[in-house]
Amino acid sequence: MNSMKVTITFLSLLLFSITVFCQHPKLTLTSVGVENINSGKEEAPLFTSLLNQTVANVDEAIAEGIDIPIPKDMAGGYTHQTHKKNYSLLHQAGNLYQLTGESKYAAFVSEALMAYAKLYPNLPLHPTNKSYATGKLFWQCLNDANWLVYCSQAYDCIHEYLSEEQRQLLESELFIPYADFISQGNPRFFNRIHNHSTWANAAVGMVALAIDNDTLLNKALYGLHYNDGDTTHPAGFLAQLDHAFSPDGYFSEGPYYHRYAIFPFLIFSHALHNARPELDILNYRDGILKKAVSVILQLSNSSGELFPINDAQKGMSIRSKEIVTAVNLIYALYPDSEDMLDWAAAQNKVILNETGYKVAVALNTHNTNAAHRKPIVLTDGKEGKGGGLAILRSERMEVLFKYTTHGMGHGHFDRLSCSLIDHGSEVVQDYGAARWVNVNHKEGGRYLPENKSFAQQTVSHNTVVIDKKSQFQGSRKKADNYHPELYFSDLDTAKDFQVVSAKESHAYPGTHLHRTLYLINDEDLTGPILLDIFQVKSDMIVSADLPIWFMGEVMDMSMDCHQAAASLSPMGNSDGYQHIWMLSSCTSDDDMFSFDWFDGDRFYRLLATNAQEDEILIGRSGANDPEYNLRSEPVLIQSKNNEENSTFIRLLQPMGSYDRDTEAHTINLHEIISIDKIHESKDHIITKFETNEAQWTVMLATNNSSSEQTHSLDAGGEIYKWKSVTDIQKTKL
Amino acid sequence: MNSMKVTITFLSLLLFSITVFCQHPKLTLTSVGVENINSGKEEAPLFTSLLNQTVANVDEAIAEGIDIPIPKDMAGGYTHQTHKKNYSLLHQAGNLYQLTGESKYAAFVSEALMAYAKLYPNLPLHPTNKSYATGKLFWQCLNDANWLVYCSQAYDCIHEYLSEEQRQLLESELFIPYADFISQGNPRFFNRIHNHSTWANAAVGMVALAIDNDTLLNKALYGLHYNDGDTTHPAGFLAQLDHAFSPDGYFSEGPYYHRYAIFPFLIFSHALHNARPELDILNYRDGILKKAVSVILQLSNSSGELFPINDAQKGMSIRSKEIVTAVNLIYALYPDSEDMLDWAAAQNKVILNETGYKVAVALNTHNTNAAHRKPIVLTDGKEGKGGGLAILRSERMEVLFKYTTHGMGHGHFDRLSCSLIDHGSEVVQDYGAARWVNVNHKEGGRYLPENKSFAQQTVSHNTVVIDKKSQFQGSRKKADNYHPELYFSDLDTAKDFQVVSAKESHAYPGTHLHRTLYLINDEDLTGPILLDIFQVKSDMIVSADLPIWFMGEVMDMSMDCHQAAASLSPMGNSDGYQHIWMLSSCTSDDDMFSFDWFDGDRFYRLLATNAQEDEILIGRSGANDPEYNLRSEPVLIQSKNNEENSTFIRLLQPMGSYDRDTEAHTINLHEIISIDKIHESKDHIITKFETNEAQWTVMLATNNSSSEQTHSLDAGGEIYKWKSVTDIQKTKL
Repeated sequence: MNSMKVTITFLSLLLFSITVFCQHPKLTLTSVGVENINSGKEEAPLFTSLLNQTVANVDEAIAEGIDIPIPKDMAGGYTHQTHKKNYSLLHQAGNLYQLTGESKYAAFVSEALMAYAKLYPNLPLHPTNKSYATGKLFWQCLNDANWLVYCSQAYDCIHEYLSEEQRQLLESELFIPYADFISQGNPRFFNRIHNHSTWANAAVGMVALAIDNDTLLNKALYGLHYNDGDTTHPAGFLAQLDHAFSPDGYFSEGPYYHRYAIFPFLIFSHALHNARPELDILNYRDGILKKAVSVILQLSNSSGELFPINDAQKGMSIRSKEIVTAVNLIYALYPDSEDMLDWAAAQNKVILNETGYKVAVALNTHNTNAAHRKPIVLTDGKEGKGGGLAILRSERMEVLFKYTTHGMGHGHFDRLSCSLIDHGSEVVQDYGAARWVNVNHKEGGRYLPENKSFAQQTVSHNTVVIDKKSQFQGSRKKADNYHPELYFSDLDTAKDFQVVSAKESHAYPGTHLHRTLYLINDEDLTGPILLDIFQVKSDMIVSADLPIWFMGEVMDMSMDCHQAAASLSPMGNSDGYQHIWMLSSCTSDDDMFSFDWFDGDRFYRLLATNAQEDEILIGRSGANDPEYNLRSEPVLIQSKNNEENSTFIRLLQPMGSYDRDTEAHTINLHEIISIDKIHESKDHIITKFETNEAQWTVMLATNNSSSEQTHSLDAGGEIYKWKSVTDIQKTKL
Repeated sequence: MNSMKVTITFLSLLLFSITVFCQHPKLTLTSVGVENINSGKEEAPLFTSLLNQTVANVDEAIAEGIDIPIPKDMAGGYTHQTHKKNYSLLHQAGNLYQLTGESKYAAFVSEALMAYAKLYPNLPLHPTNKSYATGKLFWQCLNDANWLVYCSQAYDCIHEYLSEEQRQLLESELFIPYADFISQGNPRFFNRIHNHSTWANAAVGMVALAIDNDTLLNKALYGLHYNDGDTTHPAGFLAQLDHAFSPDGYFSEGPYYHRYAIFPFLIFSHALHNARPELDILNYRDGILKKAVSVILQLSNSSGELFPINDAQKGMSIRSKEIVTAVNLIYALYPDSEDMLDWAAAQNKVILNETGYKVAVALNTHNTNAAHRKPIVLTDGKEGKGGGLAILRSERMEVLFKYTTHGMGHGHFDRLSCSLIDHGSEVVQDYGAARWVNVNHKEGGRYLPENKSFAQQTVSHNTVVIDKKSQFQGSRKKADNYHPELYFSDLDTAKDFQVVSAKESHAYPGTHLHRTLYLINDEDLTGPILLDIFQVKSDMIVSADLPIWFMGEVMDMSMDCHQAAASLSPMGNSDGYQHIWMLSSCTSDDDMFSFDWFDGDRFYRLLATNAQEDEILIGRSGANDPEYNLRSEPVLIQSKNNEENSTFIRLLQPMGSYDRDTEAHTINLHEIISIDKIHESKDHIITKFETNEAQWTVMLATNNSSSEQTHSLDAGGEIYKWKSVTDIQKTKL
């Protein structure tokens, strides 16, 4: 009896496993997941509201009927938009069939897929022929892959609804030829290490799982073995996971494209997790997926917007579909991911599957906190050896410091640039890309000419420009050969300051750039304040311009710096300078200058050391811009001319806030009144700044990153001593 | 027995009345009010939270001790700021004594007032001597009056705490000489019709009530009888109520100063209501106070910000202290003021007396709605005969049309200007004032030179400029002599459109300006849309410029309108043109042009009729601005040159919104593709515009405002007939 019982139990388990393994849906929805959802919808109001919205949306589409036009148009045109709308609808309808059990949704999907199966075999290449990989439904294979990612999920959802005959027909007439076309039919598209190929791999892999086709699945996971003259050529989904991110999870094109690229990684991994658990995809490369999600979240500022470095449209945020999907999956699939709920609360959105449901249930009962954004140093490069990116963070302020690789085709010539966020708003901005995505007015939403001529150039960033030329002469090829180096960092939050320091020695031949940024929190300062030490050492006599793209209205400045009156001219002829109107050019006899601005809510002051020979320029973007493609943004450029070595030392201090209802502003209690360089030699630099009550001495070793080294030097008769790379000493006055 | 009982009851009542009449506090707090508050604080969390904040604030001040320095400084300086802080603290401490019963608050007020009583008798005139009415504690009597308004309330609150001797001393050494100084001591300050005098009257009146001095009270209410050569000269608080507002409650300087001026009206009226109920101040001039409050609320846009017409700092809102006080008082003191709760909910603030308490209690249990902002036409001028101001309003859009009197010293030369708000944000802006109030950087917060040279000039507004000169040659004196005339309006919300039309015939000699604005809501339009017909008829050949200060980035335009490349020059030499950089000058052969912009969230299109000779200029403010006192704002100016009659016909249509997370924009389903003038004669103008699906004919009689008149005319062989001044007929295509 006992053994019989055991056997039966074993058989049941086996049968259950086989059933689970073979039954549909099994990609991003599972039957167990559907049961869970249906047993507790009332506990997940955020999910239920999404479900109701989706029902309304799909019911309307069913009532209207679906159109499946012969492909013809470019992006934005009717046939493009319609096929795009269709795959989203079919995906939603498939999910609704599972979640509501109503057969009208399955019928809708089934009919549409049958219509596609009728259309597809006779489709020639898309008539536009404008892509390196022209699609059939769309002008580029990338969109064809998008279609397949969604429609394979729709098919998976209605699999049990279809007759065997219908399945056979859909597989042989539609899915297999479709997958073949975007894989071996387009090896350049399918077999690269590139986000296009990630989509291609995910598409082929997901349809492979949906139709249980291991040949296709292997192609998706491991790539094609086609003759491209490089047999060691890495390809396939797993290789993408190996190459796309640094070991920390940083994506070298930056957060805007990180958000875009991570989506197919997540969806296909979710499907693999459900349908091929033995691959243990979630722990692949030491859990790289989870790391990559953690990074994209940290790369948002406290308003939730992604830092707009490299080609990036400003305003893209953690509330985007891709990052909502990411947070839902990580929370639901990885243990110990409670922290994701804080991000989910900030998003206030979930997705329509069990992972979204689980988040919605948890949000309904948990007390969430503000998402935890922390000071962070990330490496770039596949091996983590391509420089990186750091964020200094206090409660209110965030400083992004960029010393990454170039960032491939979407990179900017902005090594050692930084930007500053206060209370979630840009105070010193990164311009982002010159592009309005999907906005037809502006060249159909494509990158505008000014993206290359201005937004990618060095002067449009907050970093030094040598001899008014962009880094690497604006050549991506040259930039790809080198990366900056992290010199050292210390983000110990127990200290009064966070610091990061990096060097770049290849952007300008014979010239070494070294920037060190401190975010200083001190009870005797109104702050936090940013201290910026930027050293330029060259073999030649050069000019060094350091722009600061401050946001807001000019309030005051210590220089007698009147605006040009009669006419305005551009600041230069090339490298982005041709796009900046010169408003003022001034000098000062003082050994420092101050510059105040107001962003509408808050006042800020830049305090900088100054030499009599320095020129201080005030400008505004928008020159040589015949189509009004640039935003009109102000900039201050400090220019140190004709020196071998130039050192910029600057403090940026918040000066109080303003209330438009009371018309009162808070007073800065601890105004910094001076900044001075005490000493600079080959290996050391010492800076002092002071308020009326205290004085700070900032000592930095510039060529020894050992934290154990002690330094001692005599400057002007005074002995300065410190241990480690840097230290700040305060003296009350 | 019975008669005895009646007598006793009568006597009790009498005693009670006398007690109520004589007992303190009786200005803005009363003992009955205090009892009410203390019996139900738990029902008023908003009030309780304010009370706790105030306790914390005053306790801190008590711990620090109060400084009463010898007056010396101008506004912003230490002695000014300190005496200002003191009166606010004393007022709060007085209230706290009443609300908490803790004697430490009374002791604090008592000691401070005694110190002032010791200081005051020996004070000479304030040493600055820079005002037409120099004060003693402050550089101007206005601030002295502010002090007295607050300190009379503080005294009232601690009256019972003081000994008779102390009261005598405070009255004879401080309050009576103080009130005498700012009344008969400064008749030019006290006895004008001006907001300064309103403060003066309120101050003297409130201290009169606090110390039961009818002589002072009569001065406050009825003015001084001093020899200024004009015995009929109106003066005193009641005269202010007669003159400050139009019969509708409009304040001719505009909402920004309305908000400032109404505060002393409200506080003193509140005190009179409590202490002299027989005056029935709340119903004075047919309830002018309530009307004036209703107007200031309506003069806020759907974000709560006041329309920034005339000299106004942008961002001032219904959340300001003055308007919170207004809403609290009206709700608590006038019957049938339930609608105030919706405004109070939007403010989410109350004041620290029984009126604030009542609002807080009501907010705690009422379900409030969005505050009701309605289409409105307001008259200007004491008799309601000085032109006026209209707001057309739909659910999302608000159009402000200004045809008021000049607005005294704070007026702009902007007759027939309009501005457009969509979803609570400015789309076509009024520049406001060139000033940062209280911001020391900018000339101590005073009006900047560019306020006169740019912000007050006609070209900085959205109205016609003739021959590139401001209205009335920029002379306020001339402008004060005339006002525009409302031609007609129809705000019937049952109709598909709201319309307002006004004429101005004196701003430019021999030139008649007539502008008609329609806000059209139609299911066949993506809208609402704004239709603007601006007719210029002159005895001479003139040029007519119509600027539109659009807010956002240029997206597209139908003209081939390239930006100037080599250099920029100002658009002119005077009348504000010298402050506008000329970016582009273009023409078009078409009989209409379109111009699209994007404000970051939404797209807008201007569609305008055009003549080949028209010039279309694109500019940006900021030229000839040596101190960076101007904001950099874009403008499009359509210029019709060298004609006697010029007519501008324009449509402004919202074109969809943009989501930065999905990067998708909504599609405008009903794009207007043409606009055309069909007919224009001395008495009529007919305009047509169309989408792909429908066509609208807009017929307007320009010289007959009778709603009973029928019009019929033959234009191009077609007969147009309508009744009333205007009508819009739609034809489906």
